[in-house]
Amino acid sequence: MESLSIVILGSGNVASHLAVALDKHHNVVQVFSRNIDNAHDLALRLKKCQSIDNLNLIFPDADLYLISVSDDAIKTIIPKMPHVNGIVAHTSGSVGLDVLGSCGIAQGVFYPLQTFSKKTHLDISKVPFFIEGSDISCYHRLKTLAKSISDYVYSADSAQRQSLHLAAVFACNFFNHMLVIASRILESNGYNIHVLEPLLKVTLQKAMLMSPAKAQTGPATRNDVSTISKHLERLDGYDRDIYSIISEAIMAEAKHNS
Amino acid sequence: MESLSIVILGSGNVASHLAVALDKHHNVVQVFSRNIDNAHDLALRLKKCQSIDNLNLIFPDADLYLISVSDDAIKTIIPKMPHVNGIVAHTSGSVGLDVLGSCGIAQGVFYPLQTFSKKTHLDISKVPFFIEGSDISCYHRLKTLAKSISDYVYSADSAQRQSLHLAAVFACNFFNHMLVIASRILESNGYNIHVLEPLLKVTLQKAMLMSPAKAQTGPATRNDVSTISKHLERLDGYDRDIYSIISEAIMAEAKHNS
Repeated sequence: MESLSIVILGSGNVASHLAVALDKHHNVVQVFSRNIDNAHDLALRLKKCQSIDNLNLIFPDADLYLISVSDDAIKTIIPKMPHVNGIVAHTSGSVGLDVLGSCGIAQGVFYPLQTFSKKTHLDISKVPFFIEGSDISCYHRLKTLAKSISDYVYSADSAQRQSLHLAAVFACNFFNHMLVIASRILESNGYNIHVLEPLLKVTLQKAMLMSPAKAQTGPATRNDVSTISKHLERLDGYDRDIYSIISEAIMAEAKHNS
Repeated sequence: MESLSIVILGSGNVASHLAVALDKHHNVVQVFSRNIDNAHDLALRLKKCQSIDNLNLIFPDADLYLISVSDDAIKTIIPKMPHVNGIVAHTSGSVGLDVLGSCGIAQGVFYPLQTFSKKTHLDISKVPFFIEGSDISCYHRLKTLAKSISDYVYSADSAQRQSLHLAAVFACNFFNHMLVIASRILESNGYNIHVLEPLLKVTLQKAMLMSPAKAQTGPATRNDVSTISKHLERLDGYDRDIYSIISEAIMAEAKHNS
């Protein structure tokens, strides 16, 4: 496997996890951050890496420039990028390839479908990566790079990647909001969210084994309007609206499938 | 530990899992089902157990009569129960203790907070049980019984149990519906739900480690209205209504916490 020289732009959660993983098989030669301390902290975790806070100090001859910053920051960095002789790629789910303009010799996307925290250890080999390239050679180089750190590498154009991001909002953020509500109900009854952990694990297992549509159970699936109205009486505000609309959707789904 | 003689009324998912688990340390002496074949199939999986489809054949001197049938069926069984000299308990999350009237020498609830499927193996020692008893001695006997099969045993009166059940609807059924929507979006883009599995596992881990409220991320938490409106454009019907109301709720939560 070819070892690439990589410049990382960014020092946040995604940038840190990717830099550390990539540096095992490749060489992360520079980390850029607007905050030099953050760049320095990340560079210290890598084999041999320079930290910079000025885009004009970027080495022009790296193989890859990986921009891993917030969606808005990508747009502010691109116009300031000096001329470089490598691929320029970003790691965002919701930003198109076109935002990279004609930076570098080719442009690409290197999107990991995962939620990253600095403190949590993560097995990056299990994280699915979605790759896009402005030309076939760029696509293959990024795909090979992704395969060097992960077992799950797919291709996705900008429209598919937006759909992946949308699906992830339901599966991650909205799932988490269901837990926020459940947690509030439990706490006002003297319990905590941990009593639901075994149920959550089995729910996830069943959905993956059977498909979520086939795994559905509960009052709305059974059209048990008496339990539903008892539940609605115990809720108010957004929690009540959310219970109501999701129950209606599940009932419609059950009717459609029967 | 005292070994109890137990009659199981019901032969569905919950009844089967409980009967098999209880029979390891106790004696399930009879299984009742309206369908004798179902009663017979379950009885065959137990040490020494009679199968019956007539309530009048119930042994009057067992220690415990465990009614594990649908909520509506509990109400039809109770008036037909012959006089018995043991505790009568049900296993439902949403039905009160009072539905058992004055059946047996005492009444109780033995509620496992889990989703059961006949085909899936389940480690019952990790399932939380919630216990209620009409008197202190009945409560202690049921609690001891639950502890003989599970490491997680709690008390819950009928109101608390209804709240547990409501929290479980959010955490199990509504979580699963988020996966139904995510799965639909992924499939129309050539992917399947399995690409979300690593994200789902980490989301669950983080919520348990940090609390769901602190673990929340995504466009609504960041008040990123541009991404939210791009997402809404890609949705219709209930999926769109659900995206909209949950995003509003998360934004209100983020505002409240900031």
